[in-house]
Amino acid sequence: MQFSFDAIGIIHSCFKEKFGIPRQSGLAPDAEAVLELLPPFDRFEAVRELADFSHVWLVFVFHQAMKDDWSPTVRPPRLGGNKRVGVFASRSPFRPNPMGLSAVELVAIEQVQGRLFLRLKGADLVDGTPVLDIKPYVPYADAIADAAGGFATEAPEVTVSVAFSDAVEDFLQNFDDKTVVEKPLSESPSTNSGGEAMPVSADSFRKLIVQVLQQDPRPAYMDGKSSRKSFGMRLYDCDIHWTMEGDCAIVTGIENVSGD
Amino acid sequence: MQFSFDAIGIIHSCFKEKFGIPRQSGLAPDAEAVLELLPPFDRFEAVRELADFSHVWLVFVFHQAMKDDWSPTVRPPRLGGNKRVGVFASRSPFRPNPMGLSAVELVAIEQVQGRLFLRLKGADLVDGTPVLDIKPYVPYADAIADAAGGFATEAPEVTVSVAFSDAVEDFLQNFDDKTVVEKPLSESPSTNSGGEAMPVSADSFRKLIVQVLQQDPRPAYMDGKSSRKSFGMRLYDCDIHWTMEGDCAIVTGIENVSGD
Repeated sequence: MQFSFDAIGIIHSCFKEKFGIPRQSGLAPDAEAVLELLPPFDRFEAVRELADFSHVWLVFVFHQAMKDDWSPTVRPPRLGGNKRVGVFASRSPFRPNPMGLSAVELVAIEQVQGRLFLRLKGADLVDGTPVLDIKPYVPYADAIADAAGGFATEAPEVTVSVAFSDAVEDFLQNFDDKTVVEKPLSESPSTNSGGEAMPVSADSFRKLIVQVLQQDPRPAYMDGKSSRKSFGMRLYDCDIHWTMEGDCAIVTGIENVSGD
Repeated sequence: MQFSFDAIGIIHSCFKEKFGIPRQSGLAPDAEAVLELLPPFDRFEAVRELADFSHVWLVFVFHQAMKDDWSPTVRPPRLGGNKRVGVFASRSPFRPNPMGLSAVELVAIEQVQGRLFLRLKGADLVDGTPVLDIKPYVPYADAIADAAGGFATEAPEVTVSVAFSDAVEDFLQNFDDKTVVEKPLSESPSTNSGGEAMPVSADSFRKLIVQVLQQDPRPAYMDGKSSRKSFGMRLYDCDIHWTMEGDCAIVTGIENVSGD
């Protein structure tokens, strides 16, 4: 039994690569994403009344994890990366059907020059993620207060603190608003103003860096064991560099890498 | 962008038809379902450690709602069936990609003669539903206590009481255990004992009837307006008949309709 589904939308995200993305939605509340509805699904009617819901489910495709084969077990980073559990006991992207599920905060629904956008926060999605469905979060059915979560009942403990070098603080002071919608999609009318409607403040950008580094995005097998201390990741159009000194992440550099 | 997915399992459910199924998971806690993993996904390794989780998400196909076209708006029964909302503001099965999402209680994982079963409770799934993915319910990410749910924040108010006729009480006294796995799948080794491992008690069956009728499964447009008073639905291998007298559902008949 095989079933085919069309992408109904595509994610524009502050996360430009997999490295650094929190392991579940909600862990980095300032992580901004915009879901752009694709034609023919980009009709305002299709999201009528959705703005009354504070959160939505996204069913999406782990498009960077598509493989021809699958493994019945995976090694969750939560367990240090050296214990195997069944793939269906994990939220790993590497699964028989590479589909993901995230509950994200719905901030606003916006129509900009004929394009239809859902502004989201707390997303754990990489830029370009194809979305298959949007569903309202229905608290009485979806929020199971007494659920027991095996190895993942509690959120990961935050043990990392984050500091900024003077140069980085200067950069953030003179920061231009960032946006996750940098350029129009080829399917859409060409316009430079779509992104400008959805700026992200310097304050929010700073918080995002803290929230991401607090999750300690280093590979699990490196925890406190490796001599490697310097790391980099892309957020919005900036490359962020940091070093680990014990349990402190020091942001040592930040540079704008946008093309022009 | 189109994506294809294989069914990894199939649902055996107490609900043999759409009519009567609660509108969300959890509303009928005694609703039993069994998810049978299909080859090549029926390996115990693939669910290792899953039993530590009390609840799982199922991503499934609304196989009875597949159509070639889609409507940007639907009329949710919660709103009386006469107000339209966007399809993405609803959990309606009639949506651009007919996929559903339910959080259900995981009761047990069982291997019976080489077949792999997940016993579930609180399911809102019709018999034969194809399942695309199983994910553990991760409370810290999935249970959003302060989410606001538009027109569906609270569970539907129960206003219907349920009574049983003497004949139905007699039937329930002399009830043989029911099971949702009635016959082996053609893909599986032929056996009659698979189902016997998963019986449902008379007490649970009685509770299920109450839970289903309390939801008042009459079509929304009929609420208190129609002269029609007699209804029927199939649960397990029984046809259940009831009449509405004001806000009371009286179960007037029950009969076993299994083939032999």
